[in-house]
Amino acid sequence: MKMFAATAIGLSLWAMNLNASDTPGVTVVANSTQASTEGAPEHFTGSVRVDAPFAGSPPSRIRGATVTFAPGARTAWHTHPLGQTLIVTEGTGLVQEAGKPAQLIKAGDTVRIAPNVKHWHGATATTGMTHIAITEALDNKTVDWLEQVGD
Amino acid sequence: MKMFAATAIGLSLWAMNLNASDTPGVTVVANSTQASTEGAPEHFTGSVRVDAPFAGSPPSRIRGATVTFAPGARTAWHTHPLGQTLIVTEGTGLVQEAGKPAQLIKAGDTVRIAPNVKHWHGATATTGMTHIAITEALDNKTVDWLEQVGD
Repeated sequence: MKMFAATAIGLSLWAMNLNASDTPGVTVVANSTQASTEGAPEHFTGSVRVDAPFAGSPPSRIRGATVTFAPGARTAWHTHPLGQTLIVTEGTGLVQEAGKPAQLIKAGDTVRIAPNVKHWHGATATTGMTHIAITEALDNKTVDWLEQVGD
Repeated sequence: MKMFAATAIGLSLWAMNLNASDTPGVTVVANSTQASTEGAPEHFTGSVRVDAPFAGSPPSRIRGATVTFAPGARTAWHTHPLGQTLIVTEGTGLVQEAGKPAQLIKAGDTVRIAPNVKHWHGATATTGMTHIAITEALDNKTVDWLEQVGD
């Protein structure tokens, strides 16, 4: 969850992991029990809300969250050491690999981003977009942040 | 995707992986391009639909899909070598760890199942449930199937 470098997220995951180690079999985290947080301004442009973060305990390396971008909001350029999967759940947005045209993404689409590929994702200028973002941690790192995306 | 031992799923993932290796950066799989498949009767009870399967290429080990259970439908008992994350997107269902009471799960809930923990998940007797299921493959295996769940 370094993708969203907010203390609240860190605490939330820490609490979830503690909970998971208390009951190591099946852990249900109810919808209402994790407060929404905001995407950190150093890594996002515009209004970005992060909900329902999740993380497996080692040897699992999965981490993720549901991320909602207001119209015009987007991530900075970044890469993931083991890549990322996006499942678009609402609205219409964009994903762009560095040096290639942006691609339109819509609810129901699945996006696979390969390891170490520079890219950004977010809403379009006029429509909001929500996706579930799933990464795998390598040496406890899921993302390397780069510069903000220009308009 | 051994979780859904259907040939159609296998072919679908194979095609997606081929596509991913053609364009290794960012691959968008549109909502309408992967046909729905049915959960294999040897591993599921009742009507189970599988949509939008996804898989990372190594070194990523992520695999998953969206799974919709009609009322009364459920998985057989099973385990995952590296555990599983469920994100409930619609309806109300159940998850149960062997030897413990079933837990109610609702849209927006997140469920973490630890590695090698025997469990099942599905709809309630009267309400349907849809979840995104995310696993990690260990030696190319994501699930070990066991006996069906009794009524």
